[in-house]
Order: sequence, then C-alpha cells, then structure tokens
Amino acid sequence: MGNESIKVAVHGALGKMGKAVVEAVSKDDSTVLIAGIDKFSESEFMDFPRNDIPMYKSLDQCFSQHKNIEVLVDFTNSEGISIALEESAKNKISLVSGSTGYDDLFIDRAKYLSKNNQIGVLLAPNFAIGAVLLGVVSKIMAPFFDYVDIVESHHEEKLDSPSGTAISIAENISSVRKNDFKFTKTELEKIIGTRGGELDGIRIHSVRMPGRVARHEIIFGAPGQTMTLIHDSIDRVNFMPGVLLSVKHVAEMHRSNPKKTHLIYGIENILGL
Amino acid sequence: MGNESIKVAVHGALGKMGKAVVEAVSKDDSTVLIAGIDKFSESEFMDFPRNDIPMYKSLDQCFSQHKNIEVLVDFTNSEGISIALEESAKNKISLVSGSTGYDDLFIDRAKYLSKNNQIGVLLAPNFAIGAVLLGVVSKIMAPFFDYVDIVESHHEEKLDSPSGTAISIAENISSVRKNDFKFTKTELEKIIGTRGGELDGIRIHSVRMPGRVARHEIIFGAPGQTMTLIHDSIDRVNFMPGVLLSVKHVAEMHRSNPKKTHLIYGIENILGL
Amino acid sequence: MGNESIKVAVHGALGKMGKAVVEAVSKDDSTVLIAGIDKFSESEFMDFPRNDIPMYKSLDQCFSQHKNIEVLVDFTNSEGISIALEESAKNKISLVSGSTGYDDLFIDRAKYLSKNNQIGVLLAPNFAIGAVLLGVVSKIMAPFFDYVDIVESHHEEKLDSPSGTAISIAENISSVRKNDFKFTKTELEKIIGTRGGELDGIRIHSVRMPGRVARHEIIFGAPGQTMTLIHDSIDRVNFMPGVLLSVKHVAEMHRSNPKKTHLIYGIENILGL
Amino acid sequence: MGNESIKVAVHGALGKMGKAVVEAVSKDDSTVLIAGIDKFSESEFMDFPRNDIPMYKSLDQCFSQHKNIEVLVDFTNSEGISIALEESAKNKISLVSGSTGYDDLFIDRAKYLSKNNQIGVLLAPNFAIGAVLLGVVSKIMAPFFDYVDIVESHHEEKLDSPSGTAISIAENISSVRKNDFKFTKTELEKIIGTRGGELDGIRIHSVRMPGRVARHEIIFGAPGQTMTLIHDSIDRVNFMPGVLLSVKHVAEMHRSNPKKTHLIYGIENILGL
Repeated sequence: MGNESIKVAVHGALGKMGKAVVEAVSKDDSTVLIAGIDKFSESEFMDFPRNDIPMYKSLDQCFSQHKNIEVLVDFTNSEGISIALEESAKNKISLVSGSTGYDDLFIDRAKYLSKNNQIGVLLAPNFAIGAVLLGVVSKIMAPFFDYVDIVESHHEEKLDSPSGTAISIAENISSVRKNDFKFTKTELEKIIGTRGGELDGIRIHSVRMPGRVARHEIIFGAPGQTMTLIHDSIDRVNFMPGVLLSVKHVAEMHRSNPKKTHLIYGIENILGL
Repeated sequence: MGNESIKVAVHGALGKMGKAVVEAVSKDDSTVLIAGIDKFSESEFMDFPRNDIPMYKSLDQCFSQHKNIEVLVDFTNSEGISIALEESAKNKISLVSGSTGYDDLFIDRAKYLSKNNQIGVLLAPNFAIGAVLLGVVSKIMAPFFDYVDIVESHHEEKLDSPSGTAISIAENISSVRKNDFKFTKTELEKIIGTRGGELDGIRIHSVRMPGRVARHEIIFGAPGQTMTLIHDSIDRVNFMPGVLLSVKHVAEMHRSNPKKTHLIYGIENILGL
Repeated sequence: MGNESIKVAVHGALGKMGKAVVEAVSKDDSTVLIAGIDKFSESEFMDFPRNDIPMYKSLDQCFSQHKNIEVLVDFTNSEGISIALEESAKNKISLVSGSTGYDDLFIDRAKYLSKNNQIGVLLAPNFAIGAVLLGVVSKIMAPFFDYVDIVESHHEEKLDSPSGTAISIAENISSVRKNDFKFTKTELEKIIGTRGGELDGIRIHSVRMPGRVARHEIIFGAPGQTMTLIHDSIDRVNFMPGVLLSVKHVAEMHRSNPKKTHLIYGIENILGL
Repeated sequence: MGNESIKVAVHGALGKMGKAVVEAVSKDDSTVLIAGIDKFSESEFMDFPRNDIPMYKSLDQCFSQHKNIEVLVDFTNSEGISIALEESAKNKISLVSGSTGYDDLFIDRAKYLSKNNQIGVLLAPNFAIGAVLLGVVSKIMAPFFDYVDIVESHHEEKLDSPSGTAISIAENISSVRKNDFKFTKTELEKIIGTRGGELDGIRIHSVRMPGRVARHEIIFGAPGQTMTLIHDSIDRVNFMPGVLLSVKHVAEMHRSNPKKTHLIYGIENILGL
C-alpha cells in the first residue's frame, strides 16, 4: 500500500462501538481520523480523542465538507447502513460496516455498488478475529477427537442462547467430520437438562453472569487427553484489530485498482489463513 | 496416637479400589498391611505389593489366622459390607468402608455396634478430600456472588447426570444464601436446553468425554469479576489420603478410649475444618 | 442499621476509582451521593451520574456547604488522604480510604482520631473482596496438598512483579503449613528461569499481557488430583462491593454508638468470615 | 488400504508403553497382535490381553517363528531400536519406533534401509497427536497476538524443564512472526524470577506437581482478549492414536508400493494437515 495514511470517517461515532473505532483509528499509525457523523450529535466537534475533530449530523453534510475521505466505518443500524451504502457509493468512498440487520436485498445492492462505483465494501456480523480463529482451529482439531462440548459464557444481559458464535463454531466443527461425534446417553437423569443443547451431536452449554463479557470454550476429548480452546473477550476493544484490518483492506483494494473493487462478507476472508 | 504402626486388612482386595488401598497402606509409614480378603481370590498370597502378604477368601478365615488386625478397610458392595460389619464387631476390629448401598437399617446397626463393641466405624460415600473441600469453600464464596454455575465433567462411561458431588455442592451453596441466586431468563432459545439443569436457582452442566475422570468446576460471578474453583481428579489414588486419614482416625479412637467408640458418617467430619 | 440512606461524598471524584465509586454510590439503594470533591475540578457540577450533583475543589468548601455528610470515600494519594483524615475528623464524618501510601505515623493518627472524634475509619490497600476470599480459601486448602504454584496475570502496563496479592496469598498459605511444601528440583534446566520465583517453597509465576486486568490462579497438587482457585477481575467495578460494604460498616459503627468508633485496617475484618 | 488386518508385533512388550501398545493393537479393528518381544520376558505367553499371544526374548526367535508380521512397533532404548532396525530390515518388516536416543548415524541408517529393503520406517520422539496439533494451531494464532506465555505442567518426577514440547511450540510460534513478541520489562522485581524463562521473546513457565501428567497451556494476549490453548494428557493411552496411525501408515506404504518405502520422521508428517 502507498505510504500515505488512510483517511477515515466514522458513522455512528457517539455509539459504544463508534467511540471505540474513533479511538482505534486515532491511535493507529496508518489511519487518520477526518470526521465523525452521528444523527444524535449536538456539537460541532468531538470531545474525544481531540476536540478539533469535526462532528456532523448527516453523511451528506460531512461528505460535502470533506472531499478526501477514503473509508467510512459504519456502526449504526439497518436504516443507517442503507444510507451509508448509498452515500458512500455516490462519493466513491469505500465502506466497512459492522451494523446489524443486512438482508439479501441489501447484500445484492452492496455487491452491485462495490463493483460499479469503484468502492471496496466489507460487511461483517462480527469483527472479533479471535472468534474467527477459534472456528478455524476447531476445524483442525475436529477429525482427531470423537467427543466435543462447547461452553459459552456471556454477561447477564444477553437474553438469547446459545451465542451466534457458538452455533457458528459447532457448524464449522460438524462440517469436517466424517463420522458423527460420539455422545454418552444419560440413563439416570437426576436433574433434568444438565447435558446441554445439541447441534449435530455437539453439546452446547450457555452460562450468563456478570464478570464475563464473551467467552467461548471448546473442549475436545479423546482417550487419555483433552484439548481445550478458550477465547475470552473482556472489552469491545477486542473488535478493533478486525476493524482496522478491514479499513486497510478496502483502502488498499481501491488504491491498487479501482476497477476491481468488490464486496467482501466476513473478516475470515481477509485474514490470510 | 501411639507410635506403633496400625495393622490393617483390606476387604475386596482384588477390586480396583481395594488394590489402590493395598498399595497406599503398604506405602504409608504409620500403617502396615497384614492381609487381604476377597471372595474371588484364587491364591494364598497377593501378587502385589509383596508376594508374602496372605490372601483369604473370607473374613472368617482371615480373622481366625490374624489376631492383631486393628482396622478393616472395606470396598465391596452392600452384601460385603454387611458381613464386614458383623465380623469386625465380633472381633473388635475397627472398620472403614467406602462400599455403596448403605440403608437406614444398616446405619442404625453400625451405630449400635460401634458403641457397644468398642470399635470405631467410619462410613463414607466418597473419600475424595478435594471434593469435600470444594463444598466447604463454595459455602464461603456463596454469600458474596449473586450468580453461580457448576460444570462437572466425567469419563464417557458415567451414565447418570449430574454427579452426586455436583448435587451435594449445589445443596451446600444453596444452604448459606439469604436470597436466591440471580438468573438471566433466556428470551430467545436458538437451541433448546443450553442453559443447563437447575437446583435452587443454581445451573448445573454435565460433560461426558474420555480424557476426563472426575472434574468439578464452580464458577461464581459478580460485577467485574469471576471466582472459579476447579477440582480435577485424574486417578483413583486421589481417594487414598481420605482412606488413610480415616484408618488413622478410627484406630486412634479405639486406642485412646475403647469405651467411647462411635460411628462417623462422611470424611468431612474428620478434616478438622 | 437505621433505614435512612447513608449520605456520602467522594474525594478524588474525577479519578478512575473515584468515578466508579460515584456510580456505585448512586446506584445502591442504601446510599445517597451528596457531593464530589476533586482538586482538578473545573465545574460546579458533575457530568455523571447526574448533572445536579455539586463538585468542589476542596474538602473545606464542600463540608462548609453540606452539613449532612456521614461518610467520605477517599481515593486520592498520600497527600490527599492526610487532608481527608484531618478534615473528616474535624467535621465528625466517617472515612473510607483506598488511597495508597499509608505510613505508620498516619496509621497512628487515624487510630487516635477514630477513637477520639467519634468517626469510623476504614483503610484498605485493596477493596477486592474476591482477592481476600482467595487468601481465605487458600489457607483451607494448604494443609491437604503438598505442592502449590501461583500464576498471576496482569495487564501489560504493570511493571512490578509478582503482584502484592500473590505475595499476600503465598504468605497466607505458608502460615498454616506444618511442613514445607514439596518442590521438584530441576536437574536439567534447558532454558533458565522457567520454574518461577519462590516464597517459602511456594513457586510464583507472573504473566503480563493485554487482555488481562488482574487474575490470580492458585494450583494445589496431590497424587491423582489438582485443586485450582482462580479469581479473575476484568474491571474496576469489582472493587465496588468492598467499598460499599465499608461505607455501610463505618456509618453503622457511628450510628449505633459514636463513642465506640475505631480504625479498621483491611476489608478482611468486615466480611464476617 | 486392503481390507486385511495388519499383523503387528511389539518390541519392549513388558514396558509401560509396550503394554499400552499391546492393548491398543488388540482393540483396534484393523490391526491384529501376533506376538510380543521383551528381553525381560520369563514366560512363553502374555498375561494380557490374551494368554495365548506368544512372547519371545529376542526378535530373532520371534521372526523365525512368525513369517507373517508386517509391522514391528518398538518402544525400547537406543540399543533395542538398533537391533530392531537391522532385524526388521533383514525380514522385510516395517518399523514404527518411539524409542529415545536416535543419533544422526542411526537416522542415516534408517533412511538407507527403508529405501533399500522395502520397509516403511516411522520414527517419532513423541506420538501425542494433541501436542503436535497444539504446535500447528499455535502457529495460526501467532501473527494475530503480540503477547504470549506458555505454562507447562508435568508430574513431580520430571527433572528437566521446560518440556521438549514447550520448546518445540515456542520455536513453532517464533518461526511465523514478522516482528518479535512484545514483553513488559519488570521495573520492580519484588521476588526474583517470577517472569519465567525466555525463548525468542516467548515466556515459558514450568510447574511440577502430582495430579498432573503432561499439560501445556499457551496463552496469547491482545487488547481486550486472550486466546488460550490447553492440551492436557492424563494417561499414556493418549499416545496410542498416534502409534496406530503410524502402524497403518507404514503398512499401507509397503502394501501399496514396496519399491517406494522410505523413512518418515515425526507424526506431524502423516496427519494430513
């Protein structure tokens, strides 16, 4: 990539993830923060990280003031990301988004605009590199162990179970097995329900408590040995390496050949694994 | 206790636990192995630990040959322990038993004979000091944490769940709480059954796989912190410290005052906690 | 205690710990936040948790405005706590402090004023109840296991090693042993220094890395089994239960009998263990 | 591979590993145990697993009686494996060996004989698939985390430290890093030596205690997250999948094309990773 720093704006800059992105982009040597956008903004400048970084209520206002932005990072919602995609495409600004609620129509539109408007687009439901790596190495382990349990633990306010990451890992593991995993059938169930939920013969257990943020533990068993893989995330800064890698990837995609930009879905495709 | 070594015989000496007791009694400086008894014995002597230790098919034969035995250790079954109690009482030999299947009638009989025949008797469903300690320290933690999960893991051949130890620990924890533990109610259950079984608001998860023998993990959660207690037993030698402590306890009970012998149920009562 | 809420002011309210205390006092049903004090304050009111809570640059200003404060919580430094002690004593306000740098002279003065000025004083180097509990249960385990290692992990900015908590736990464990712990002497050291530091035969290992805040793991070993105790603190809110308990303790001390107030050093003395 | 079972003999059949191999070969559906060889044998038949399996004091005796043996498994010592290599080569029997003490001369001889005598030869210092896998996945993690510590725990009789596996994993991890790992320099060392040993910037800690057999824990740290990989071996049966895979591999090598047999060193080369 050229040596010049990548110029970045952040959409949803007052949200929790947005603030973390603002901080990460400011600290990284190869990115520079140009502006923040948030519809709830009541000030012309950010408080943090520097009080001279301008804030805007809309993408439209921001892009009309700043012509040098290369990448927009978006952590908003399904409404916000729709506007962000159209505005970015119109202004030839590449896009990285971790907003939730993509539907097929939106994905198709993102594919179309990324190809035709010379912008790189990277959409990802999850920027945690650690969680992606956990899935990758679980697939390596799976053929060698006939038993596996997943124990996922999250904070007490998480109301769904199991976590999407746990399901995704179980699907990964299952996909590489020739035979089903083995499973001991309980004959005397002294308390109902202790053996966990089941996906393709893989048992999943969910713990909810304060003191945890997001922790996934995969335990493989074979005669005389266990292999345990634990990813423990305790702060949303853990998403930032994935966000920064994505920013650099779409910027490089555009810089190296603006005629070959396209959509990438999921950070597992840019980790070089 | 007097300095003289305690003279011990082992009932069920060819069983897995019996063999471990034979080895432990042989190695300990304050105990000496006199004889083994096993109804399946086909030889006059043990193979192990020394080939000059005599073996008998019945307690009757053994006790008529050896008048100096002080403690009989019994790891048989409900039939074996009944005979062991009567024969020990008749011969004024103290008794330690980890056999299973005590009923109320048997306990009453053991109480009676221990008081009236000048023999110490210690019965225990579990000689694992570690498991007992886990219960003790869990009670200390319980008032300070509002969330708790228990994850127990055992070998793949264990057909009941959860383990008796997990239930016992949950009961211990529950007994010291003023308020119920808190629990996040799942609103979206993407796979059924991942939140585990429940006892008094405590969630219990059971894992069965090779590579584990018996492992109990208690996880307490509070804002910003977790406290995790793990007892991991990988070999039945882990029961031996509890067996030896019991042998010494009943021997000392009889040696110090044969008129005050009595029944003790459970090793938690001799740990000096 | 009386039903009336305890009126609290926070000294060092703009520091990291001070802010956490401000939040905790505001949320707790039995405490009410009256004011904040911080010499770096540039505003008349707090931003957070409510913008109508007054801020002062000095204790003197604060105490002259608010006559109903019962407890001052202080998280400053050795200079700040000296002023706080004198001003609190003068105004008959009880004091809880987690500032660092108490010397013997200060402790003596705190003892004197707590007895003679009818204020409860609680000083503690550490308000983490979990860390205190870890020391308590480690002492219970120590007599039953002949081997022990401590592995402490902290964030990458911690420049001293091992942690004070690790040393304190090692001293606790050591104090209850009749015999020294056992230790395998390395005969072939392929890389120098892997066996850790040593205190009274206890091996201590220190890990420094991002992704950890403060984690202490005590591993006890005996034949066939290990017992592992892990306290994992991931956020400074983990100190707040200890702070709140201390606030309630000194308030109650004064409310119930102002003539019997005194100094308490260390939260282990108020946990009812 | 052809459907016919692979005919196996075990050299060092009375040793601990030899016994485990005898049991594993007997249980596996695709291998059949023909004979055992041990210079300490005093009986014509094995005790276990069946008392009709013949035992020999020398390879010479065994091979002259049994002409159908396809694979010899050797767990002896540097003397035993030298004889085993020559006798196997002479009798066109493939060889799997986990004996210790191979030198360069021996490796060269094994290469020569495996190519020229139509026998497959697999030598491995370690048959634990889990330990090999740990190295493989550690290399995948290494580029994404700037901090790493290894904590290895072994039984109390292991006199060297750190373990060879820990060193091998550290070398694996180091080999894939562009930049050195980061490391917090201790400024205040309250107890000397707690930060562990060092290899290429990777810190290694060694624990020795009963209750452990062989456990390796790799902890990677990055802002807001840790990734922990734990392989815990509690019984030497954990080596058997690697031994059986090796037996099948060398048998298949010879069956499919006896002119292309060769030496394989290390099971990592037959795992299909």
